[in-house]
Amino acid sequence: MTTKGFGSDNFSGVLPEVFRALEAANTGHEHSYGEDRYTEKAVGDFKQLFGEDIEVYFVYNGTGANILSLSAFSQSYHAVVCAETAHINVDECGAIEQQTGCKLLTVATPDGKLTVDLIRRHIHDFGNQHAAQPRMISLTQCTELGTLYTPEELRTICDYAHSHGMYVHMDGARLANAVATLGCSPARITKEAGIDVLSFGGTKNGMMFGEAVIFFTKPTIKEVKYVRKQAMQLHSKSRFIAAQFSAVLQDDLWLKSAAHANAMARRLAKEASRIPGVEIIREVQGNEVFARIPREHIERLQEACFFYVWNEANAEVRWVCSFDTTEDDIRDFVALLQKELAE
Amino acid sequence: MTTKGFGSDNFSGVLPEVFRALEAANTGHEHSYGEDRYTEKAVGDFKQLFGEDIEVYFVYNGTGANILSLSAFSQSYHAVVCAETAHINVDECGAIEQQTGCKLLTVATPDGKLTVDLIRRHIHDFGNQHAAQPRMISLTQCTELGTLYTPEELRTICDYAHSHGMYVHMDGARLANAVATLGCSPARITKEAGIDVLSFGGTKNGMMFGEAVIFFTKPTIKEVKYVRKQAMQLHSKSRFIAAQFSAVLQDDLWLKSAAHANAMARRLAKEASRIPGVEIIREVQGNEVFARIPREHIERLQEACFFYVWNEANAEVRWVCSFDTTEDDIRDFVALLQKELAE
Amino acid sequence: MTTKGFGSDNFSGVLPEVFRALEAANTGHEHSYGEDRYTEKAVGDFKQLFGEDIEVYFVYNGTGANILSLSAFSQSYHAVVCAETAHINVDECGAIEQQTGCKLLTVATPDGKLTVDLIRRHIHDFGNQHAAQPRMISLTQCTELGTLYTPEELRTICDYAHSHGMYVHMDGARLANAVATLGCSPARITKEAGIDVLSFGGTKNGMMFGEAVIFFTKPTIKEVKYVRKQAMQLHSKSRFIAAQFSAVLQDDLWLKSAAHANAMARRLAKEASRIPGVEIIREVQGNEVFARIPREHIERLQEACFFYVWNEANAEVRWVCSFDTTEDDIRDFVALLQKELAE
Amino acid sequence: MTTKGFGSDNFSGVLPEVFRALEAANTGHEHSYGEDRYTEKAVGDFKQLFGEDIEVYFVYNGTGANILSLSAFSQSYHAVVCAETAHINVDECGAIEQQTGCKLLTVATPDGKLTVDLIRRHIHDFGNQHAAQPRMISLTQCTELGTLYTPEELRTICDYAHSHGMYVHMDGARLANAVATLGCSPARITKEAGIDVLSFGGTKNGMMFGEAVIFFTKPTIKEVKYVRKQAMQLHSKSRFIAAQFSAVLQDDLWLKSAAHANAMARRLAKEASRIPGVEIIREVQGNEVFARIPREHIERLQEACFFYVWNEANAEVRWVCSFDTTEDDIRDFVALLQKELAE
Repeated sequence: MTTKGFGSDNFSGVLPEVFRALEAANTGHEHSYGEDRYTEKAVGDFKQLFGEDIEVYFVYNGTGANILSLSAFSQSYHAVVCAETAHINVDECGAIEQQTGCKLLTVATPDGKLTVDLIRRHIHDFGNQHAAQPRMISLTQCTELGTLYTPEELRTICDYAHSHGMYVHMDGARLANAVATLGCSPARITKEAGIDVLSFGGTKNGMMFGEAVIFFTKPTIKEVKYVRKQAMQLHSKSRFIAAQFSAVLQDDLWLKSAAHANAMARRLAKEASRIPGVEIIREVQGNEVFARIPREHIERLQEACFFYVWNEANAEVRWVCSFDTTEDDIRDFVALLQKELAE
Repeated sequence: MTTKGFGSDNFSGVLPEVFRALEAANTGHEHSYGEDRYTEKAVGDFKQLFGEDIEVYFVYNGTGANILSLSAFSQSYHAVVCAETAHINVDECGAIEQQTGCKLLTVATPDGKLTVDLIRRHIHDFGNQHAAQPRMISLTQCTELGTLYTPEELRTICDYAHSHGMYVHMDGARLANAVATLGCSPARITKEAGIDVLSFGGTKNGMMFGEAVIFFTKPTIKEVKYVRKQAMQLHSKSRFIAAQFSAVLQDDLWLKSAAHANAMARRLAKEASRIPGVEIIREVQGNEVFARIPREHIERLQEACFFYVWNEANAEVRWVCSFDTTEDDIRDFVALLQKELAE
Repeated sequence: MTTKGFGSDNFSGVLPEVFRALEAANTGHEHSYGEDRYTEKAVGDFKQLFGEDIEVYFVYNGTGANILSLSAFSQSYHAVVCAETAHINVDECGAIEQQTGCKLLTVATPDGKLTVDLIRRHIHDFGNQHAAQPRMISLTQCTELGTLYTPEELRTICDYAHSHGMYVHMDGARLANAVATLGCSPARITKEAGIDVLSFGGTKNGMMFGEAVIFFTKPTIKEVKYVRKQAMQLHSKSRFIAAQFSAVLQDDLWLKSAAHANAMARRLAKEASRIPGVEIIREVQGNEVFARIPREHIERLQEACFFYVWNEANAEVRWVCSFDTTEDDIRDFVALLQKELAE
Repeated sequence: MTTKGFGSDNFSGVLPEVFRALEAANTGHEHSYGEDRYTEKAVGDFKQLFGEDIEVYFVYNGTGANILSLSAFSQSYHAVVCAETAHINVDECGAIEQQTGCKLLTVATPDGKLTVDLIRRHIHDFGNQHAAQPRMISLTQCTELGTLYTPEELRTICDYAHSHGMYVHMDGARLANAVATLGCSPARITKEAGIDVLSFGGTKNGMMFGEAVIFFTKPTIKEVKYVRKQAMQLHSKSRFIAAQFSAVLQDDLWLKSAAHANAMARRLAKEASRIPGVEIIREVQGNEVFARIPREHIERLQEACFFYVWNEANAEVRWVCSFDTTEDDIRDFVALLQKELAE
């Protein structure tokens, strides 16, 4: 029986290639705080991916990446539009509001995805001193509900935002999974779609720690390096974040890992959907499967193979696959499901 | 010629034992965000060191540790007394003020060390609504000037603070170096001396990333776990911080590493002091050497073997030794100094 | 034709009795910052109204009162539940989030009123470090939509809140209008209903400036006087806020003024409702009338007699009556409406 | 015997002309939140004084004015240089740090006045991500120690600041007293000297409430109106601040009042200095007298005629004169002093 479970992609460890890169970087002394050669190299690797006209800042974690992204473009009297289900709204303990001062303007969505129609209700009162000024739109790719935006959908949202003087942030904690599914270049669904700033996920995709913030548009009201330092997101031994990024960007390892996780998720959804009592709630577009299963079985299943209940109210559960999820893991879990639900 | 240099202890890499511990922790899936078995183990290791009645929180870096420590005990209308040279005052980009809202009340010191006499000028106006209320004293052990506090000196400051309803924070980024020099138990200069909360350094002493905040006094006005999360200091793959701490706490590795760095620093000071033109400014009590050298030689020396100028005004430089500084490094650098100053 | 209009109760001036009280207070020197005799007197007046076991803090304006109220009970990782239409959500430029750090958890309501059923969806995740912790419920009496809560409705909400360790704040910018309509004692719908802290409105009810924050429950995590000072809400010549409050509390002037405004609003609603094309949207329970009128007439009406459009989308307008609104004002405006809509 | 005392200029009431202006403004309805005709008029009055190219924002109090001034030009990673004795450093409960996030870099001064030589020690580390970036210099005119800057001294500081890309804020809570003493135009020691933003005091000089922030340089990184609203400094019945400013600016009333207070202070200093045991500490340049008197007499004197002890350590007291201080007040107090010190 698998012990891995499907709790989260941050339950997994570190890709072997990443580990070897850390080892290789562990030689001698290096300048710290981003002035090392590994950082220079990794920034170059990102420029290969996205073009020369970007700025890259490495940080510790996703919350840090999101806050750096949003903070760079906004003052405390601004507002950020996002989906009600957005990680920045429900999973960061109010850190966005506390750290940026900004108001979050949330919209309910059927599938975790913003649309211009959904956003529009919050886009007003520009110039009204009593109202927090809409400034950013923050969307997640893949979304927290396992769905993804097409390049065209992103373009539409970005055009709308820019026509109102607003900026668009992409929380790309699972960007790799989206790129892998869409089979496009990463620039296609970020820079070329009009995204202004990207949280480029590392940890959820096989790194030990570290995320990257990539500015496609240069922020003009704040200097990002000071924001990062004040936000406690500047690592001293910076080579150890940079070396990991170079490792995952090498030979598309980040995409291969994500593609594998996606494939495992699709396989799980497909096989589980055949079990009576299991309902796959929406199409699997990344590495997450959302399913409804009979409530009385959940706890016993979790004990045997951990996963999270996503929504207590309707017995919705979430199964996340990772770079190291194997076909055996899927087979064992499906067997477990089958056995449990048959009882 | 050495390429290591004496820039900072965060220019060094990772202890081999730490690396092996990371490798050992990289197996299978683990719960995240501090709910893993490695975290449980590392907390236990700290309790072995300091006793059962502590609370331990792992964070990413020193700024994060200091802010978590100070924030846990204070509201935004409080003030923190510290030395003018304190890291929290000069090296954290104003993050303390921004993150905690607190005012820093600084005192000039001859040697980086606070004393009750120095502190006293800021301890007044309790209850006066126009004045930020003195709440914390933050001291650094070893100090930023390479000096250290004896247990008695700490006791005196803590008693003074407590008699005014204040709390004492120790920035222990280099605590290991102090313990190694004093040859006492770590509890002796922290918990037993009356320290309320400690930033226990990891990164400067051979870890890849991660620091620990250790509460000897339980804060009652804030719940630390939420403060940490909002401060972007909660790591998802938490096992990888915890495993490093268990590795350095094992068999006193943290103290042995520090003792080695200290010994190298003393050796460097001793040998350099014999060179005409080099003046060692103060006794070496940790792993840092502060020296005055003829200004015109500094730049050329830095190019051959990097170190920082500490004070432009009086040509004071700082040489930091690390766990991996070797006797050869010292010998080579002393030779370089000798040659350069002879020219 | 009236020039007064129905724009807002803060378009009106100052009650004559308030003016005389300011004049009477303008003699000689007085201690400042709340240590004057007028403040002592006004606090006593509030204790006559609400009982001895309260704490009273005077501030400048409604936003200040709301922030002092919420901030006193919360840390930045807390969340405040309120109606989507709440003043703190839509009319304070995001000041709550910026000043308190707290997240606002909003609910859509049909009539501006919270109910336990509406609140419940936000009351979860206690103890979950990833979620802003629900801490306060903030409701407005009368609401921003001109409705009011009965004592029983308030009691139900307060009981629910307290059973979850939460506190209830009442934004009483128009508390007087509610008390006047309900014909109960002010304590009945605040302290006795379980409200923990009240923003007691002054400016909208005939004062020149100044609001009072009344704590029925003593906050234990923060000292309010420092919060007020940092929030820039401590007036130096404090006697001039206090004297106004004593004036309006004298002989129930505050309730008489509100009762008059309410009566004018009811009259306006009654008479306007008879005009073809005017639809009164909801029962008038305070001093505000919400109506729908044919869109093409709005601008011309506003030019003749100012009022605000409340909702562009459905041609909803708001008419606010004040202590100085006269029967002639109503008659003239109704005539204007009649004439305009007949065209 | 006088009952007025010399506690503070905010112990005094309101100028009769100001009161009449408030009365005159109390007619009918007016738009609120700064969109009223009185605000337009008062802004025009300030433009007459300082020229057309200014922006004027009315706020409630001095702390609000200072924070609006500093916040408009700075981000949280900036630092503000000021005198150790500055009101923003010692009398605002840490509000600057909390509200702006900025670090205060303080310098000890002999007389409350900054000089370039004193400032210089904090002006470094531009571009260093570890250091709060020096951004503003804040000086007070008259200073908190009753001294004042000449136009040339201001010019020198402003030139220095601008040459480093910094901005200069003047806390002008007692600007009137400085202008009255210097006998120059107000523009001479503000705009023409290079000041970028001014807190123009109202309350300490005979107003009931209200201060003005005057921007001589337009801030480009923040929009001031939103900062004011979030800072809880936007008054709804804005006409009542504006009308007061128009009243004091009319026929130089503000300068006449200040000149009177200054004259009274000089007279008090002159007469008191003749009493054995009284030492006037420094030249009286505004409306404040600093004196040293035998410690054992202080308390009895305070009981008869209130004033503050400025510095417990050396028995230094402060006597403040106001627009309503009379020659009789001086005579009586001097007599009291004489009698008391003779005992």
